[in-house]
Amino acid sequence: MKILKTKEAMRAWSFAQKAAGKSIGFVPTMGALHEGHASLMRASVAGNDVSVLSIFVNPTQFAPHEDYGQYPRTWDTDLAMAEEIGIDAIYAPEAGSIYPEGYATYVNVEGLSVGLCSGTRPHFFRGVATVVTKLFNAVLPDRAYFGQKDAQQCAIITRMAQDLDSGVEVVEMPIVREADGLAMSSRNRYLSDADRAQALCLSQSLAAAQAALDAGERDAEVVKALVRDGMAAVEIDYVELVDAATMAPLDTIDRRILLAVAAQVGPARLIDNLKFVPSEITQGASAPAEAEACC
Amino acid sequence: MKILKTKEAMRAWSFAQKAAGKSIGFVPTMGALHEGHASLMRASVAGNDVSVLSIFVNPTQFAPHEDYGQYPRTWDTDLAMAEEIGIDAIYAPEAGSIYPEGYATYVNVEGLSVGLCSGTRPHFFRGVATVVTKLFNAVLPDRAYFGQKDAQQCAIITRMAQDLDSGVEVVEMPIVREADGLAMSSRNRYLSDADRAQALCLSQSLAAAQAALDAGERDAEVVKALVRDGMAAVEIDYVELVDAATMAPLDTIDRRILLAVAAQVGPARLIDNLKFVPSEITQGASAPAEAEACC
Repeated sequence: MKILKTKEAMRAWSFAQKAAGKSIGFVPTMGALHEGHASLMRASVAGNDVSVLSIFVNPTQFAPHEDYGQYPRTWDTDLAMAEEIGIDAIYAPEAGSIYPEGYATYVNVEGLSVGLCSGTRPHFFRGVATVVTKLFNAVLPDRAYFGQKDAQQCAIITRMAQDLDSGVEVVEMPIVREADGLAMSSRNRYLSDADRAQALCLSQSLAAAQAALDAGERDAEVVKALVRDGMAAVEIDYVELVDAATMAPLDTIDRRILLAVAAQVGPARLIDNLKFVPSEITQGASAPAEAEACC
Repeated sequence: MKILKTKEAMRAWSFAQKAAGKSIGFVPTMGALHEGHASLMRASVAGNDVSVLSIFVNPTQFAPHEDYGQYPRTWDTDLAMAEEIGIDAIYAPEAGSIYPEGYATYVNVEGLSVGLCSGTRPHFFRGVATVVTKLFNAVLPDRAYFGQKDAQQCAIITRMAQDLDSGVEVVEMPIVREADGLAMSSRNRYLSDADRAQALCLSQSLAAAQAALDAGERDAEVVKALVRDGMAAVEIDYVELVDAATMAPLDTIDRRILLAVAAQVGPARLIDNLKFVPSEITQGASAPAEAEACC
C-alpha cells in the first residue's frame, strides 16, 4: 500500500494507473475510520481495478467554534483497516499544501447548499465541495464512494461532479449502523455512556417515521412531528423532510424523499436520515439497487 | 486534426495522449481567432507534444445585455488557422451539454475577482473561472496559454489552477497588436472606420504612460490622469493601476504593476493594459522571459 503525501505524487500515481488501463475507485475521508468507511472501501475494491483512500481533516469545513482541533486522528488503525480491505494507495496531504498562503478559490453548489445542515454550518458545504474538487483533481478517480449518512453532502458532490465535467461517478452507499441502530460516525467517540443512550432517539425516531410512511402516511408535517416528539430529550438542530434530489422542503410525500435530522447530544453534533419512495409511484418500477448513483 | 464535440470524447482522447507519455498544451478560446490567438497556439505547439484548441462561446460570462448572440462565429477560418499552426485536436462542445438543466456549480476566486472588469461585468469572472475549470477537467492539459490582454482573467485563472490542484501550468503571453498599436481582439470586428480611429487612443494613452513610467514617474494618480486625458474622446469604463499579482489598487508604483483600461468605443467594449516593473526593484534581477508563468 502506497502512502502519498503530496498532490504531485498522488497525480503521478493516478496517471500511471490510467496509463496501464486501470479504473480507480476513491474513498475520501477525514480518517477516524469505522465500519461505515469500511463498507465504502469494500465497494471501491470490488468495483475498480485499484482503490485510493484519502485521509485529510479539512479545516475549511469546520467553523472556528467547531471540533477541528479535537477531531479524532487514528492514523495507525486507519492504515491497518485500509490495508486489510485491499486499498492500494493512501492520499494524506498536509493542510498547508492544500491551503497555501493566498488561497482564494471556492466551489459553490447553489440551491442544494441551502437548508438542512447549512443552517448551523453555513460554510460547511462550500468547504466540502471545494476540497472534493481538489481531491478529484489529484486522484482522478472513475468512481467515488460516499455514505448516505451525509445525504445532503452526497447530493451536492453528485451535482458538482457532473457540473464540473469531472468524469467521476459518485456512488452513494447505505448507512451502516451499530447493533442498536445508532448510525456509525467518527463523532460517536465523543459520547459518554449517558450521551450514547440518549443518541439512540435519532435512529429510533426515524424508525418510527419509517413505520408511519410504510403504513401510508403522506403528510410531511405529521411525519416531522412524530420525529420531533421522539427526539424531545435532545437538543434538535433540525428535522426536515425534503425532495431527495433537490433538497427542497415538501408538504406532501409524493416523490422520493429524504427525512433528515440533526441534534446536539452532549459534546457531539449527530446526524441521521432515511430515504423513502412512496409505493404508489414505484408500481411496476424495478427495485432500487443496494448501491446507487447518488440521489 | 481531430474535432471533439463532447467532454467524454475529449477526455478519452486526452487520457490516450497521457498514456502515450505525451504532454498536452491547451489554448481555450471563444473562436473568432486572430493573430493574438495564433501566438498562443504557436507557443503551445512549440512547448508540448500535442496541443488542443477549444472553441466555446461561453454564455455564463455574458450578461443579458451583452453580445453573446452577436459574438462572431468564424468556424471555417478558425479551423484553417488551427490546422496550419499544427493543433492536434479541437474541443468544441455544445452549450447544452456544458450547462444542462439543473446546472448549479460555480467556481469563485475571491479577492482577484473584484475591481477592474468586475465593476461593469459582475458575473464575468465567475463564468470564466467555472468554464475554465470544466475545460481543464475535459482536456487535462499540462500547460494552458492565455493572453496578457485579459490580464485580470489571467491572474484569476492562475490562482484557480493552483488552488484547485489542477496540475496545469498557466502561461501568459504578450499582447499582440496591429501595426498601429491597437490590441488585437475578436471585438475589433464590431468597429466602423471612425470607431477604429478612436479606439487607437487606448494603446496611445498606455504608450504615453509607459514613457512617463520609464522616465521615473511613480505616482499612480499622475499616471492614471495622463491616461484618462488621452482617452477623453471615448466612454471610459475604468483606468486602474493595481498590484499585478493581487489586483489591489496602488497609490505608489513600488512593485510590479498592471495599468489597465476599458472603454466603450462605438458598439465594442475594448480593454488594453501594460505591465511595468520599476527599475529600482529589478537591479540585479534577471530579465523577464518572453512567456512567463502568469503574473
